[in-house]
Amino acid sequence: MKHLISIADLSKSEILGLMDEADRFAEALEGREMKKLPTLRGRTVFTMFYENSTRTRSSFETAGKWMSADVINISASSSSVKKGESLRDTALTLKSVGADAIIMRHPSSGAARQVAGWLGDTAVINAGDGSNQHPTQALLDATTMRNRIGDISGKKVVIVGDILHSRVARSNAQLLTTLGAEVVFVAPPTLVPLGIEHWGNCSGNSAGNGGGKDSVRVSYDFDSEIADADVVMMLRVQAERMNGGFFPSHREYATRYGLSKARAERMKEGAIIMHPGPMLRGMEINYDVADAPQTVVLNQVTAGVHVRMAVLFTLLVGEEG
Amino acid sequence: MKHLISIADLSKSEILGLMDEADRFAEALEGREMKKLPTLRGRTVFTMFYENSTRTRSSFETAGKWMSADVINISASSSSVKKGESLRDTALTLKSVGADAIIMRHPSSGAARQVAGWLGDTAVINAGDGSNQHPTQALLDATTMRNRIGDISGKKVVIVGDILHSRVARSNAQLLTTLGAEVVFVAPPTLVPLGIEHWGNCSGNSAGNGGGKDSVRVSYDFDSEIADADVVMMLRVQAERMNGGFFPSHREYATRYGLSKARAERMKEGAIIMHPGPMLRGMEINYDVADAPQTVVLNQVTAGVHVRMAVLFTLLVGEEG
Amino acid sequence: MKHLISIADLSKSEILGLMDEADRFAEALEGREMKKLPTLRGRTVFTMFYENSTRTRSSFETAGKWMSADVINISASSSSVKKGESLRDTALTLKSVGADAIIMRHPSSGAARQVAGWLGDTAVINAGDGSNQHPTQALLDATTMRNRIGDISGKKVVIVGDILHSRVARSNAQLLTTLGAEVVFVAPPTLVPLGIEHWGNCSGNSAGNGGGKDSVRVSYDFDSEIADADVVMMLRVQAERMNGGFFPSHREYATRYGLSKARAERMKEGAIIMHPGPMLRGMEINYDVADAPQTVVLNQVTAGVHVRMAVLFTLLVGEEG
Repeated sequence: MKHLISIADLSKSEILGLMDEADRFAEALEGREMKKLPTLRGRTVFTMFYENSTRTRSSFETAGKWMSADVINISASSSSVKKGESLRDTALTLKSVGADAIIMRHPSSGAARQVAGWLGDTAVINAGDGSNQHPTQALLDATTMRNRIGDISGKKVVIVGDILHSRVARSNAQLLTTLGAEVVFVAPPTLVPLGIEHWGNCSGNSAGNGGGKDSVRVSYDFDSEIADADVVMMLRVQAERMNGGFFPSHREYATRYGLSKARAERMKEGAIIMHPGPMLRGMEINYDVADAPQTVVLNQVTAGVHVRMAVLFTLLVGEEG
Repeated sequence: MKHLISIADLSKSEILGLMDEADRFAEALEGREMKKLPTLRGRTVFTMFYENSTRTRSSFETAGKWMSADVINISASSSSVKKGESLRDTALTLKSVGADAIIMRHPSSGAARQVAGWLGDTAVINAGDGSNQHPTQALLDATTMRNRIGDISGKKVVIVGDILHSRVARSNAQLLTTLGAEVVFVAPPTLVPLGIEHWGNCSGNSAGNGGGKDSVRVSYDFDSEIADADVVMMLRVQAERMNGGFFPSHREYATRYGLSKARAERMKEGAIIMHPGPMLRGMEINYDVADAPQTVVLNQVTAGVHVRMAVLFTLLVGEEG
Repeated sequence: MKHLISIADLSKSEILGLMDEADRFAEALEGREMKKLPTLRGRTVFTMFYENSTRTRSSFETAGKWMSADVINISASSSSVKKGESLRDTALTLKSVGADAIIMRHPSSGAARQVAGWLGDTAVINAGDGSNQHPTQALLDATTMRNRIGDISGKKVVIVGDILHSRVARSNAQLLTTLGAEVVFVAPPTLVPLGIEHWGNCSGNSAGNGGGKDSVRVSYDFDSEIADADVVMMLRVQAERMNGGFFPSHREYATRYGLSKARAERMKEGAIIMHPGPMLRGMEINYDVADAPQTVVLNQVTAGVHVRMAVLFTLLVGEEG
């Protein structure tokens, strides 16, 4: 593995390998006051974010620093981008400065894969490209699930909300079906992308293990799907990508697609609630439900650091080990 | 001590303990070319600033790095705040990423205490909340005073200017009266907050040592207070918080409340001039007076790093030692 | 050497000393996976950038971190500058926080020298001041040239484009003539500054080695200069400094002053093409020419890190060694 661009590039065993590595890092750090491993000492990691982010950037920065890497942050707002430089030249510049890895977020789908093609042996990690992919999010979601509900194969995962703009939904659908889960999307018709029925691992995933075309389906009725779900994953409504054209109303969205107390109570014993954050409480998810014991939002955040340590380790030193 | 939110939470001995610790760090680093202690190796410190800052943020970052902590900066302008996330969720996210301490500045009074309540055992350090508190500033001011004029008890400190918007004034009043100083506020009537006569340590400070109600008073006549002052502390006029409603005029302010050369010359032998910065020379303080030998503005900056080392050390490892 | 403000301050032997030091760092890091030297452990380096930058700031940050310095970034947009603080007070504050070196970029010509005068023994490194100087750029350009075409003495360097706004052109002219090169400026008449004929090392350089007044000249005919050039250095058109008054048109600029394929093909065997970046491909330089084997743009970026390591090392520990 040279880059991490898309879940669709990963085989089932590569996915499980990264999840296992993340669990090993979690175990290695468990209960330690000093969180510092020498693993990436002398390696240089750049973050290059063209979109705002708290949790993803700081999670990667923490992952890098806990492994003793030098981490250097570049934000688009203070960069040469403003002077008209192309993405290719910016990326090649960071490689020539000395980057061993570039972690990038970009508003255009496909940007990370382009950069990986230009950079060759400098590792590129996609931290979100438009509405396309967010592979470390899917890996941390799966790691969190496995730690709470066990083997993902055969589980039912209901993903609810703004599927249209969600790279999180797409990456999760590919990963979860590859591991044998059933994925059901619940969304207002205006927020369901064309071709969603092919998001399962048969279409994009060259490895093509498990799952299959029938493993992904769309429903417009949240209530009929919730009772037997093992996981309910709520998505953020990405109003900033809607150019003013937000369908019914916030109230109607909350009523039909929000995770209310009543809906949460109908979930079965042991089922969990997820959200990639940031949450809009009151609309996407009821205020109290967001803090309920079955809600694992903060576990997702913690798993994120371990997954990103696993990814950086695998890409930068894994093949030598 | 789990958090540092307000001077009002500290007993006299806790205040003196932090000042002594700051002096020990100053001594340990004195004259050393290599400023690097292993004290906080493997600890992760986040700065989360919702308001602009050069000196406070970089002072904390320096303090953390000199003790070998990993320091990660989050600025509100590039964070999930823009996507509508609540302060509580942002803070819980940083804790879950792995923060051992969160240093925060926020425009709302009380924000730091709220966050401390939500975070439990992750240390919260208030680096300024609205017009309420700036405890490390008061600690560094007192440390600077003690190093220049000795024991603070019985000294007269005149604090001049925009008291209304000043968290620096409030924190200093509480700390200085707790240590037995007399505090006199000099300000235009429009910039004196209601209830200022209760700012001494009897009202807010649960510990209630020394000082007392009579230890704080207001004067509108700078000239009558300056001759016997041991310390004159000028404040920044926070025009950005005045919504356009700035009373008389800059010229009148400078005339009546600025520290002119004539006023500085009337100060007694050994008395010192302070300012938390950034200074508006020409209005708050005469250009040359700002560079005079009795002006200790830069000593305050240096003491700030030592005080912040002391605070981080005390909160993160002090109780074990 | 206490500061690095202008190439005009450096003697020929100081210039060669820094270039040799850069080559030694390049050699020391060559082929190493772990890029980490203990050289500046315990030293604190601030970057203070009042203008946008990707490559220069991240290059300095990388240089500092590879030598184990603590690097702290201050950007003007989030600093006390917004509150009206003077540049002098900001700089003195960073010194008092504990800066061993301040690396600064500022839109005003002369700003770095002023700061150096105020700071005394804290090293100031000019990372670009208005249209005046960018000394580390000239040093990295010369280092890149020497590694590709050998001794710079006697070589012909053609510098093309927006000379008027270019600190890169000015620093290069001084450095290259000091080392004995012939410098020819090619530019539209509207982008040639007054007095450019005195840019050679006789006018500004107190050391006054080699070169001389005749070593710098201006030409308006790119085609007549290109065939015998050893180096063609294209400059960025700094539209943001032109206040809307950009002469002919982008198309005419590209036609007369752009480095087209046809022009590049007329260059002699072994000659190289340089650009300080960010490049505007299609206007300043043909898209394919920018990626041609004789184009050393990315070598310049890599040399930049080594030159900045050499500068930091020389200023912070060199005199002791």
